[in-house]
Amino acid sequence: MQCNKCGNIAVYFNKISGVALCKKCFMKSIEEKVRWTIGKYGLFEWNDHILLAVSGGKDSLVMMKIIAEIEREFPQSTLIAVTIDEGIKNYREIGLKLAKKYAEKFGVEHEIYSFKKFYGYSLSEIVEKAYEKKLPHHPCTYCGVLRRKLLNVKGKELGATKIATAHNLDDEAQTILMNILRGDVERLIRLLRAENTKIPGFIPRVKPMQLIPESELALYAYYSNIELYSVDCPYSHTSLRDEIRRFLNIFEKKHPGAKYSIYSSFRKISQKLAKNMVEIEFKRCKYCGEPTTRELCRACELLEQLGLI
Amino acid sequence: MQCNKCGNIAVYFNKISGVALCKKCFMKSIEEKVRWTIGKYGLFEWNDHILLAVSGGKDSLVMMKIIAEIEREFPQSTLIAVTIDEGIKNYREIGLKLAKKYAEKFGVEHEIYSFKKFYGYSLSEIVEKAYEKKLPHHPCTYCGVLRRKLLNVKGKELGATKIATAHNLDDEAQTILMNILRGDVERLIRLLRAENTKIPGFIPRVKPMQLIPESELALYAYYSNIELYSVDCPYSHTSLRDEIRRFLNIFEKKHPGAKYSIYSSFRKISQKLAKNMVEIEFKRCKYCGEPTTRELCRACELLEQLGLI
Repeated sequence: MQCNKCGNIAVYFNKISGVALCKKCFMKSIEEKVRWTIGKYGLFEWNDHILLAVSGGKDSLVMMKIIAEIEREFPQSTLIAVTIDEGIKNYREIGLKLAKKYAEKFGVEHEIYSFKKFYGYSLSEIVEKAYEKKLPHHPCTYCGVLRRKLLNVKGKELGATKIATAHNLDDEAQTILMNILRGDVERLIRLLRAENTKIPGFIPRVKPMQLIPESELALYAYYSNIELYSVDCPYSHTSLRDEIRRFLNIFEKKHPGAKYSIYSSFRKISQKLAKNMVEIEFKRCKYCGEPTTRELCRACELLEQLGLI
Repeated sequence: MQCNKCGNIAVYFNKISGVALCKKCFMKSIEEKVRWTIGKYGLFEWNDHILLAVSGGKDSLVMMKIIAEIEREFPQSTLIAVTIDEGIKNYREIGLKLAKKYAEKFGVEHEIYSFKKFYGYSLSEIVEKAYEKKLPHHPCTYCGVLRRKLLNVKGKELGATKIATAHNLDDEAQTILMNILRGDVERLIRLLRAENTKIPGFIPRVKPMQLIPESELALYAYYSNIELYSVDCPYSHTSLRDEIRRFLNIFEKKHPGAKYSIYSSFRKISQKLAKNMVEIEFKRCKYCGEPTTRELCRACELLEQLGLI
């Protein structure tokens, strides 16, 4: 098969559009899609101080590569990569190493912040405590809530005006389906808010890779000689997300385009909903001062339940 | 296990609420849920002329039994059961027989209308034609569109002010998920409109069983000595709905309450969306005069593609 753009040998074929691309044109198409996403949804300003949340997984490394390239055109803009060390035994070490290595390679400043240092406990310790106390939360709940808070706190210290995360199309479709299956409409609506609303004390989070399927990011990483680490997080296999990931992958194979359909349905619904959204009043967490709609922010609430605050 | 209401031997246990019920209290609970749904969503007026869409499947037979009972309290209201004979070989005959038998038993007037007589072709003939012409639609598309039109046309002739269908909680959750996976937000929104909007020439459709899981309807049917016919529609196994049904059943087993979560998420979203919904302008189909947003109604459009109009 030949590349539809330049006639070279194609390495990529898109079932939905019928487009075949060679390695070079495929990589360019991904980069253009990221640029398009940034422009279309107004993710970055010309003078943004962008914090890249880089776990060291392929998605975040690809994001770092592409955004570093784009931001070279914007000298007033700055980039800093941040890796959170949650403290997950036999897992996080590899990610930290890769994040550091590629930040150097792509010429991006890099910082590491750990749960242990900031909260006083690693994720593994927190999860153990939660088991002891028979709390119903999944490890991913603690990990996500505490990671997001740490990014926001450190982002403010670093003067960041945007936090970019490497969520891809699969992540977005999974999250939407997960919230629908859980009946969590509020969180579904909040997904959009985080991107477009200015809340004092809360750095806007943007997702420049949101339109790119996970499989295409993997191919892009491969052609960029980015090392993939095939170790999965030890907690991920027990999660609802993992179950939904498997269902969606089977479903997408049978019905190509299904993931994008879920994503775009939700975008359309969100846009319609955004029109008459009531402004939520934000307070400051009485423990840590972070913005929250309640007395305590979710992170302090979880730590309090564990008796760690 | 004992019934939580009367102390008799329980035959039903609800995993989510932890409630156990005996046969009599279980049946009463289903009937009360139907009454509650009718009241809560304002499905019927005291003087409605209700057309019950009765296929002969257990759901529609249970609906007929319960609604006939409820409507005895409203002497100004009338009931008529209508069965559509789509003309599906080796399948529809059994449903027709059961619909007729139970309409008589529950004292409800009963009419049968056929695709063959109204459209000139049975569903089997239409599906054959679609195969010949290599049209992309699924048999369920023809069946659904043509059945709904026939019900609306005949309903108007009969003076019906409401059409009640026996869609249960599983049907609703499947439909929502199906439309999300297909990215069909318009149809998702229309689901709500059909219930609450008055469109000239279009009889409002209501779903009194929408809160009852399929499994509970099956149990109710069993205790009501309603015959179940275990023959599936020959077309159903090829459908997207069937695939989603299987996924949802597996998912519900692992996460009790998931079907209701999907349903209630969507209700909440719909209510928020309904607030700023733009009124759609309805025209009349240039072939048949039925209400439509386009030149042709969907039924006439499908028949025209087939060269049958």
